Amino acid sequence: MTTAAQSVRQTKYGFSKTVDLPYEAAVERTRAALKDEGFGVLTEIDIKEKLKEKIDVDFRRYLILGACNPPLAYQTLTEELEIGLLLPCNVIVYESDDISKSVVAVVDAKAMLSVVGDNPKLGLVAVDVGERLQRVLSSI
Amino acid sequence: MTTAAQSVRQTKYGFSKTVDLPYEAAVERTRAALKDEGFGVLTEIDIKEKLKEKIDVDFRRYLILGACNPPLAYQTLTEELEIGLLLPCNVIVYESDDISKSVVAVVDAKAMLSVVGDNPKLGLVAVDVGERLQRVLSSI
Repeated sequence: MTTAAQSVRQTKYGFSKTVDLPYEAAVERTRAALKDEGFGVLTEIDIKEKLKEKIDVDFRRYLILGACNPPLAYQTLTEELEIGLLLPCNVIVYESDDISKSVVAVVDAKAMLSVVGDNPKLGLVAVDVGERLQRVLSSI
Repeated sequence: MTTAAQSVRQTKYGFSKTVDLPYEAAVERTRAALKDEGFGVLTEIDIKEKLKEKIDVDFRRYLILGACNPPLAYQTLTEELEIGLLLPCNVIVYESDDISKSVVAVVDAKAMLSVVGDNPKLGLVAVDVGERLQRVLSSI
């Protein structure tokens, strides 16, 4: 395991990390890490499977997990009813070009909520969610 | 049915419309309209049910639908692998305070993709998706 493979990269709308784990193991570790930070996985999209089924194209193994912390979600929904348009928080896991490795990425909760404008209460929740997602990524 | 009840409002991160339909009927109409515009519903979150189950609070009936147009999703994924962090496009339906009415809202695809920065190809897809979602809302 090299240091480079373990570093977190900031992308335009999230944080990403290449891990020295094949896809299934990376998915399993991601699920466990989300649970440890209080996130339930409310939705799952197997992109490879869906693209094959719907438009018959081959794609790398790629999973979108919709993570949600119920108390925080409730807090944001009572603050701003239409925030459901931005829920849940996406976490993706996909096969790297070198399939002995995988990439795990989490959405940047603060950047996402930046489209909401200046609601200080929502801002605080976004910071909390963002810190939890960062810890998820660090722990994998 | 009043004109006011049928007009589309632009919110900070989406477009919203109050319809003279109770919740179940609004959900059914929304599903049909999404299908007509080439969107499959890949995920569903029943917020009322989840909040009751997870933290035992009562909330209005509220559904988050994750809509995805497979050819357009494929196009964005081949253009930018981490775009899965922003997929699928959310459409929400919830009970209005007057429960004979419902609110349907769609995410603003262009605003969402604005966090991606200036990728012209993604921009074109965002415009296409945005126009489809606008037609969904208009047709309900």
